[in-house]
Amino acid sequence: MSEFLKAIFEPKSVAVIGASSVPGKSGYFFTKELLNNGFNGKVYPINPKGGDIDGYPMYRNLDEVGKKVDLALFVVNKNVALQSVADCASYGVRAGILYTAGFAEMGGEGREIQKKMVRIANEGGMRLVGPNCMGVFSASSRLNLVGMEIPSGNIGFVSQSGNVGITLWHDAMRFYDTGFSRFVGFGNQADIAVHEYLEYFADDPETKVIAIYVEGLRAGSGLDFIKAAQAATKKKPVVILKGGRSNAGRRAAGSHTGSLAGNDALYSAAFKKAGLIEVKNLDELLPVAQTLMNCPTFKGRDLAVAGSGGGHMINCTDAAERYGFNIPPFSEKTHNAIGELLYDFAPKGNPFDQAGTFIDNLDVWAQTTRLALSEPNIGGAYVFGDLGGYMPDLVSGGVNWNEAMHNLTQVSKETGKPIVAYSLCARDDYACNHTLRAEGIPVFDSPALVARCLAALREREEINNTLLTVPEAEKGSGYSYPEFEKASKRKAKNLTEPEVYSVLEKNCMQVRGWAFCRNKKEAESEATKLGYPVVMKVVSPQIIHKSDFGGVKTGLTNMEAVVKAYDDIMENVKAKAPEAEIDGVVVAKMNKGIEIIAGVISDKQFGPVLMAGLGGIFVEIMKDVDFSILPASQEEIRSKIEGLKSFPLLNGARGSKKANVDALVDILFKLGNFAYKNTDIAELDLNPIFVNDEGAFISDARIIVK
Amino acid sequence: MSEFLKAIFEPKSVAVIGASSVPGKSGYFFTKELLNNGFNGKVYPINPKGGDIDGYPMYRNLDEVGKKVDLALFVVNKNVALQSVADCASYGVRAGILYTAGFAEMGGEGREIQKKMVRIANEGGMRLVGPNCMGVFSASSRLNLVGMEIPSGNIGFVSQSGNVGITLWHDAMRFYDTGFSRFVGFGNQADIAVHEYLEYFADDPETKVIAIYVEGLRAGSGLDFIKAAQAATKKKPVVILKGGRSNAGRRAAGSHTGSLAGNDALYSAAFKKAGLIEVKNLDELLPVAQTLMNCPTFKGRDLAVAGSGGGHMINCTDAAERYGFNIPPFSEKTHNAIGELLYDFAPKGNPFDQAGTFIDNLDVWAQTTRLALSEPNIGGAYVFGDLGGYMPDLVSGGVNWNEAMHNLTQVSKETGKPIVAYSLCARDDYACNHTLRAEGIPVFDSPALVARCLAALREREEINNTLLTVPEAEKGSGYSYPEFEKASKRKAKNLTEPEVYSVLEKNCMQVRGWAFCRNKKEAESEATKLGYPVVMKVVSPQIIHKSDFGGVKTGLTNMEAVVKAYDDIMENVKAKAPEAEIDGVVVAKMNKGIEIIAGVISDKQFGPVLMAGLGGIFVEIMKDVDFSILPASQEEIRSKIEGLKSFPLLNGARGSKKANVDALVDILFKLGNFAYKNTDIAELDLNPIFVNDEGAFISDARIIVK
Repeated sequence: MSEFLKAIFEPKSVAVIGASSVPGKSGYFFTKELLNNGFNGKVYPINPKGGDIDGYPMYRNLDEVGKKVDLALFVVNKNVALQSVADCASYGVRAGILYTAGFAEMGGEGREIQKKMVRIANEGGMRLVGPNCMGVFSASSRLNLVGMEIPSGNIGFVSQSGNVGITLWHDAMRFYDTGFSRFVGFGNQADIAVHEYLEYFADDPETKVIAIYVEGLRAGSGLDFIKAAQAATKKKPVVILKGGRSNAGRRAAGSHTGSLAGNDALYSAAFKKAGLIEVKNLDELLPVAQTLMNCPTFKGRDLAVAGSGGGHMINCTDAAERYGFNIPPFSEKTHNAIGELLYDFAPKGNPFDQAGTFIDNLDVWAQTTRLALSEPNIGGAYVFGDLGGYMPDLVSGGVNWNEAMHNLTQVSKETGKPIVAYSLCARDDYACNHTLRAEGIPVFDSPALVARCLAALREREEINNTLLTVPEAEKGSGYSYPEFEKASKRKAKNLTEPEVYSVLEKNCMQVRGWAFCRNKKEAESEATKLGYPVVMKVVSPQIIHKSDFGGVKTGLTNMEAVVKAYDDIMENVKAKAPEAEIDGVVVAKMNKGIEIIAGVISDKQFGPVLMAGLGGIFVEIMKDVDFSILPASQEEIRSKIEGLKSFPLLNGARGSKKANVDALVDILFKLGNFAYKNTDIAELDLNPIFVNDEGAFISDARIIVK
Repeated sequence: MSEFLKAIFEPKSVAVIGASSVPGKSGYFFTKELLNNGFNGKVYPINPKGGDIDGYPMYRNLDEVGKKVDLALFVVNKNVALQSVADCASYGVRAGILYTAGFAEMGGEGREIQKKMVRIANEGGMRLVGPNCMGVFSASSRLNLVGMEIPSGNIGFVSQSGNVGITLWHDAMRFYDTGFSRFVGFGNQADIAVHEYLEYFADDPETKVIAIYVEGLRAGSGLDFIKAAQAATKKKPVVILKGGRSNAGRRAAGSHTGSLAGNDALYSAAFKKAGLIEVKNLDELLPVAQTLMNCPTFKGRDLAVAGSGGGHMINCTDAAERYGFNIPPFSEKTHNAIGELLYDFAPKGNPFDQAGTFIDNLDVWAQTTRLALSEPNIGGAYVFGDLGGYMPDLVSGGVNWNEAMHNLTQVSKETGKPIVAYSLCARDDYACNHTLRAEGIPVFDSPALVARCLAALREREEINNTLLTVPEAEKGSGYSYPEFEKASKRKAKNLTEPEVYSVLEKNCMQVRGWAFCRNKKEAESEATKLGYPVVMKVVSPQIIHKSDFGGVKTGLTNMEAVVKAYDDIMENVKAKAPEAEIDGVVVAKMNKGIEIIAGVISDKQFGPVLMAGLGGIFVEIMKDVDFSILPASQEEIRSKIEGLKSFPLLNGARGSKKANVDALVDILFKLGNFAYKNTDIAELDLNPIFVNDEGAFISDARIIVK
């Protein structure tokens, strides 16, 4: 596979299908680009009419070329795209880039043609980028197949959108002094999927950080993506922006690249599992990538906020704290040592404001930051000021602005701790901005953006320390349970409650304190055995939502109540669902504790996904659930439970006893394994599970088979 | 008062105290600025030694001037500031600007000197800006007393920080083509408070929108600020950024301007009450002000997202939805009419992507947006693209880029609906960016920022429609209640529960279903009268936290339980608090319903503030409470309750009965009035109040007097 990707990013020969001698046409433009801008492979312009491009000969077809071709650029009309692809595939071209739009993103016929095109290409041993895409850039190969200037550097950028590419190149060039090793705008993602590019970029020595913009993963490729991303993130930082998060945005993604944008929360869960650093705004993608590329990671949460300008100090401090940093006071020694360097009226401490001390000693930037970073707990510095923009010709303390900034960058190098700077002049063309960036201090003109970038360095450190591996688990075609067969025999998709419990118990999820009772007598005797209070629920293959039919009675405290409940349930169900067969009732102990909802959903991208969170009446208000893409380890599931907003409820809030989280995690882990292995299941809910200090008690459950 | 502000922003004469003939000194700089840059009033440089500044005579003192002086600039050393202020005050100067730092922000002696300075100034009929401040700019008076270039325009800017001022001037000039009518950097706010500047700016015809950056309101000035802001917002939009929101930021604000930054949530409540538009990031302050100044308001929530570039479309749509907009499909007619203008493969609908149609018809920007805004429900348009940056010399559809953008601005004017644009080239020096901005379409290079600005136009419309007036209410010195006197007699600050209930009932807050019982006999008979189950609580002047002493028994279902509870309580309390006098017990009906917590806190800036929200075990996890600065109308309190995250619980979530919110609001309103009028109260809690379909039931309460 990487052989195909190599043919795309490092081709030895490129054929331009649809080459043209007419300036202004893409087929002219790309041929000239390849011929004139340093690409060191062979270039074969193909045009059925032959002829030449400013003297360089065109070929009528690939047979006329008669040589091995790594990469074909299709700059052809939609109507001939399929034939062109087929020709190249039959000739043995390794890879093709199809710019042309009008396929899956149009739906209907376009989708079908796209499928056919990929099939034909793959049968001939060719892989495709696009269609409906921006193309490829590869700095080390001097290959620019996107038709716009891209600054070179070491960011590998995988983008579903061309315009997002343009935005980042523009900002990299115009404001941020950074650049790209490779770029692919992959558009409809018909053949090569995101995770394949990711695998190539992970091993690419030219690429030091990977940035991804994606609108949708290909159906069914979610787990492959997670695994590839996890492997990549072990080698270099990966930052990702997911487009199409909103309802209307999802709709739009379909029309843009034919993507199924999918469930927002699942994407976030997947990115977390994969060890990716996720940004939520386009403006953050490049700055975060640049910062991850140029700075050491941030250890701990304690930050120094250091610079000049009281208003800056406060806005930067607010932003840093919003992004989860502590700004603790320095030790007395460091506090005083910094204080001695500053004007007497300057605010001291952490944060501190030089209040213009640099006017008399420009080297104070490096001197104070060095002292701040000498504190062992301080993981990095947020430096703020009007860097180089106030009295730009100032020389004091023996240095000019540029030297002072160079000295500041040395502090980061000496200490191995990151520095990111806020300057209101960050986008101005000042020498000291360029110096800072070239020597490892990114500088931005937004207090929040600087904080976001520092937080990414902290995330990166945390990922390095805590990244979990996707457990190896076999995805089976399901086990044959007699309960499933029973349902199948009665032509139903739902199991009854006793059948569900039986299946759960076969998968080591114990359901305690319940009995299936075929008649009133059994109900009476089982209730007495279980001990009051009990709950009674009708058992009928035709009834899924039992309480809608008056089939549930709770809080039964004695035998009279049990008898009455039985009669009431039979009467209700017969009245409301006269056709339903009634097998009997489940009698169960009333459980107490924190109400948890758990289940497994099936997702187009990610397959079976475990969901768990706070249940009961608060579920809609707090929406406090999280997702684990399966397979998931106990450790991962535990971290999701511990990350719930309502976790304090389980953890002994307000002096209550700690709930048995181990028991809950155990059930969820088994539930996840069961659902991952058993592909016959369409829906599975354990709702509620009551968790208290003694254990976790499954108190209702539902399975729908496919 | 406005006479003083007029002396600051529109002085007829300015004295420079500390003028200097030495270039480089502030006293030189400001004098030259006044003399050479168009200020049309009198300028009196003051220097005890006399002499001249490049031939312009200096005065030894104000007596030598011998004329009326409106404004004094103090560019003097900290040590002589007090004397200089005293001199000017005694001479009858109306106002002074004190740049010098080293006063309240240093704490201790600095704070004392600052107080004294203000007192002396005020006694002489002079008001002060600063100290520790950036100074004043006033475009129409050609008065620039900040020492840096400020672009002229119609934003009135009140900033506690000079550096925040510099940031906005820089961005206005360098990127956003906008400017300022007036500016004041007010620093320590020792004398003139924010709300006084606000009153002046509200009536200033040169100012079309007011921007505020504040780190802290002066103690006790909260309500004045709310009233001034509310009056201002009725005349023009006001946007505010509060610095010092974080813990470390609050600490920093103290060291920067000596501000007590105060409670974050109360500031947000105050800004909302005042009808201000609050931004949370520095980067938003200027763009939001500019948008409010240049665009009509946004009616409703339905937005058109229209432009070119699929990736832009998706990121802009995501951002817009995150800021609360709907992006609904257009009517079929409009959908088709827009579709006919676009390339066949272009994504249609709302949002839509021209996909480069403009290459063949540049006027498509105006044509499609006009169609989109013709939909009656659509309140405005979010236009996106690489405006003017792609093929900048393009002419098609009979227009060039600049004309196309001019035509787009006309669509906003014709329809009276706002358009704000995202362009990746928004900060480039393109003619069409300038045209857009000059003609009423702000343009920014961040999808989120454009959405934020559109949301501000929606907020402004909502404020115009819903702004509540601060009710007139008399703040008394408290009513003399015998219960307060009783507490005072026993030298205690807390009232007993029966005393609290008695006070509440005198203020029309009915507490139902309780009885004060002096002994066991009374407890038995009252419990029977009330009806079971009941709760029993000890009554003792020395015991505030009753349950800590075993003084509370709940769920008493019969007389035996009442008797046992009485004995247990007596035993517990005697064991744990042997010194406590026991007056008896309260026996009360057990109430059921949603648990609400309510109380009144006393704040340094805002005085008494009503707090209400979800009570019980979720209070710490959900932190779902809101604040009403007092006095507050029933309408305001109701809107706070309806705005709670957990409001669905009160409003019949999951098929439960709707709770009686009227009854709750009635209690809260009376509680607020009581607390506002009665300044003897230090703390007041009603916790819990149970609210169900029948009413709102105060089930415990506490009053601590001052």
